[in-house]
Amino acid sequence: MIRPPLVFFNFLFILMPGSTKGTFVWTNIMITTKINNIHSSLLFCCFSLLQIDHFGFLEDGTFKQRYLVSDKHWHQSGGPILFYTGNEGDITWFCNNTGFMWEIAEELGAMLVFAEHRYYGESLPFGQESYSDSKHLNYLTSEQALADFAVLIQNMKNMVPGAQNSPVIAVGGSYGGMLAAWFRMKYPSVVVGALASSAPIWQFPGMVPCGAFYKIVTQDFAKSGHNCDANIRKSWKAINNISSTASGLQWLSEVFSLCTSLKNKADAAAFKAWLQETWVNLAMVDYPYEANFLEPLPRWPIQVVCKYLSFDSPVSDYQLLHGVSQAAKVYYNYTGSTSCLNISQTATGSLGALGWFYQACTEMVMPMCTDGVQDMFEADEWNFQAFSDECSAMFGVRPRAEWAGTVYGGKDIASHSNIIFSNGGLDPWSSGGVTVNISASVVSILIPDGAHHLDLRYRNDKDPPSVRAARALELQYFREWIKQAKKVN
Amino acid sequence: MIRPPLVFFNFLFILMPGSTKGTFVWTNIMITTKINNIHSSLLFCCFSLLQIDHFGFLEDGTFKQRYLVSDKHWHQSGGPILFYTGNEGDITWFCNNTGFMWEIAEELGAMLVFAEHRYYGESLPFGQESYSDSKHLNYLTSEQALADFAVLIQNMKNMVPGAQNSPVIAVGGSYGGMLAAWFRMKYPSVVVGALASSAPIWQFPGMVPCGAFYKIVTQDFAKSGHNCDANIRKSWKAINNISSTASGLQWLSEVFSLCTSLKNKADAAAFKAWLQETWVNLAMVDYPYEANFLEPLPRWPIQVVCKYLSFDSPVSDYQLLHGVSQAAKVYYNYTGSTSCLNISQTATGSLGALGWFYQACTEMVMPMCTDGVQDMFEADEWNFQAFSDECSAMFGVRPRAEWAGTVYGGKDIASHSNIIFSNGGLDPWSSGGVTVNISASVVSILIPDGAHHLDLRYRNDKDPPSVRAARALELQYFREWIKQAKKVN
Repeated sequence: MIRPPLVFFNFLFILMPGSTKGTFVWTNIMITTKINNIHSSLLFCCFSLLQIDHFGFLEDGTFKQRYLVSDKHWHQSGGPILFYTGNEGDITWFCNNTGFMWEIAEELGAMLVFAEHRYYGESLPFGQESYSDSKHLNYLTSEQALADFAVLIQNMKNMVPGAQNSPVIAVGGSYGGMLAAWFRMKYPSVVVGALASSAPIWQFPGMVPCGAFYKIVTQDFAKSGHNCDANIRKSWKAINNISSTASGLQWLSEVFSLCTSLKNKADAAAFKAWLQETWVNLAMVDYPYEANFLEPLPRWPIQVVCKYLSFDSPVSDYQLLHGVSQAAKVYYNYTGSTSCLNISQTATGSLGALGWFYQACTEMVMPMCTDGVQDMFEADEWNFQAFSDECSAMFGVRPRAEWAGTVYGGKDIASHSNIIFSNGGLDPWSSGGVTVNISASVVSILIPDGAHHLDLRYRNDKDPPSVRAARALELQYFREWIKQAKKVN
Repeated sequence: MIRPPLVFFNFLFILMPGSTKGTFVWTNIMITTKINNIHSSLLFCCFSLLQIDHFGFLEDGTFKQRYLVSDKHWHQSGGPILFYTGNEGDITWFCNNTGFMWEIAEELGAMLVFAEHRYYGESLPFGQESYSDSKHLNYLTSEQALADFAVLIQNMKNMVPGAQNSPVIAVGGSYGGMLAAWFRMKYPSVVVGALASSAPIWQFPGMVPCGAFYKIVTQDFAKSGHNCDANIRKSWKAINNISSTASGLQWLSEVFSLCTSLKNKADAAAFKAWLQETWVNLAMVDYPYEANFLEPLPRWPIQVVCKYLSFDSPVSDYQLLHGVSQAAKVYYNYTGSTSCLNISQTATGSLGALGWFYQACTEMVMPMCTDGVQDMFEADEWNFQAFSDECSAMFGVRPRAEWAGTVYGGKDIASHSNIIFSNGGLDPWSSGGVTVNISASVVSILIPDGAHHLDLRYRNDKDPPSVRAARALELQYFREWIKQAKKVN
């Protein structure tokens, strides 16, 4: 498996499905079976028959794309549609974690649609064969996914009475946010606007410094506790020291309560990568209230973590790493029910991980690097060639570093309209996000106290004012776009 | 071969290459060999290595896309680039027939680039195998072509000193005009604006009445001579009558000086289809001066044709068809050097025809129909299923009627910017063109006296004022776009 330094794979874990799969009834027509579901609102579950290949005609097969619909609050005859552009995971998981859409549906009289991204969840173009080889994986691209969304919306408009003139707004977070923004850019006839939350559309080669991501992770730890980043920075050497002997490896395995003991140097390297991912994940989910996104966690989890890492004076490697182990257990065992830690896992189940690896190995080339000075990690350069070779070995494909920039316009996005880029100041992915206003209608909303797409989550009493303001502003833009669309129709 | 009623294939012939191929020297780097060419200006000839499949990673092969460059008038360091989005033919042919670009290059200090469309001319992704089967044809789509253009421009900007910040304007006519418009829509970061001349981007299912095209052809004949349309309308029945006997077929073959005599009913049907195409082609090239585009022709060729079709009172079938034969010979034998007429040909050589057939059988589904009342042709309904079956038999692929509308936005193009749609009032393809202003920057320019992309041709003393005004306005928009771009940089 590809592993760090390709740490952008962390991105994946925050978005991957848990085991929240519902018991949907599949039907043969667009919308039929109403089922009580994960939300108190009624939710339809449906699928749409889509071309496996939108951009070629040799492969003329179709597949079933799953999508979820709630029309409880929808004002028929032109009422708006909020359309979640599903990312790399089970759509029910995104549906559950995008409370913002549920909360504003009533105010807007909006229908909600959550569309599953091809190759994830149950939307497998070739069923169980979908991941069998690079031939079957060939249709896993963002362009195909956007085309799926466009055709799905056209189908719905043709088939759902009253939807013909409904303005559709794309909403997405993380990679789903990238898709929402790109969807508006590439299919402005289909969606009147897009909310792209925590969408690192500039995390591509040549657009932002490769070290920016880890700098933000480090800042999050630096400001969450005394000496917290400094002690994590020291921990890598301590691990190197201790893991150099068999007894040290054994000690590490025990103090971290690892499910499988570390045996050798390679295990120690994997262990460090796992720890690095742990800190990254904590930075992404540093929410102001107790939450269960990647793992069940306390409010402001990094502050809790840092309590174990506040050594003031020099301590022994053992003392330091004992602190690190307690910190890691905040992330992996907040509930106290975890019997051991598994270093091949940094978040909830990730069957779809392979799909995101493939996407990273083709279009989604996101350079990352560390220098150990401006960040708290071991120095690690970005090496495209090594990355490409890994991809070739793993999937038989090679990444195209420049393509995403060419097809999606890179930094030159000023000619587009009606896109909100929201970014959290705590979120490392904001490094690749659009954090400046581009034009009057391609705008940035900053949420200084927000982690990864906090604005898309259900509101909470402990929400900082910045995210409340962001949501209010987002809603205001939505209303404006809807009004614009009505003028046209 | 697919034939009428699929008369949109005519579209092809006007755009297909003649035998004007230059003797270009191919080189291994972007721009090296200067050659004196078809124009007095110096022209480079180059190729760019491009992905055969931009939208999938399994096929990782590359091919050589040919493009022509003239930098004689280019002001380096940010001077603009006029980029011809090549259509279905040899690029040297388009280069020769787009005098407008050559004429304004000096005024704008612009570089000219003419990019050849994949699968045409010498830009064959799989060499001689490119057309061998549907597997090799699979990458012949407009989306792939647009991606080629985008990557080519990025490559040029990276490699040509001074071009990095050059604003690029897309220019194209007919299908090339559709590509120019779509290029601006899909890659606004790559081109600052587009001139889409005679671009029927709405000639797709459900967007315009299928009979509109032939109505315009008919109007052209109606206003070019007394009874001209009426007599052509009568001619089909006359052909049916006369071709019902062997002697009648022989008579027809002789009076039309056919290279191969008509033998049976099928031949007679092909003969009628050929005549229909002839009238369509005349409508497209009804230029106000002597020209050689599809065939060498006099000025206002339809007026000349109609002289033979002005019978006032009822005449015999033989008299009528004798007139028709003289009319047809205006088109096929204006120079007097044609020894016989070949009913399998309606314009200059068409090796690339197959490519356009394939495109029509996949994405470019353009419904056409006639009723014999509002037009001067035999009634013929649009039958998608029959068309699809023909495509399946011919190429093993089936057209997707809705796709072009979904991917390119159909009539809903108001969110785009900086696109000029110019259309000639005499051009039947204006039926599917954008002939109303969509917004302040997506505008229509009408040329009442213009045939197919007259504005893109070299200026001529006999040009009507409307085309002079159109060119002046186009140039004004170009200047505005360039100014806008400079503000941003």
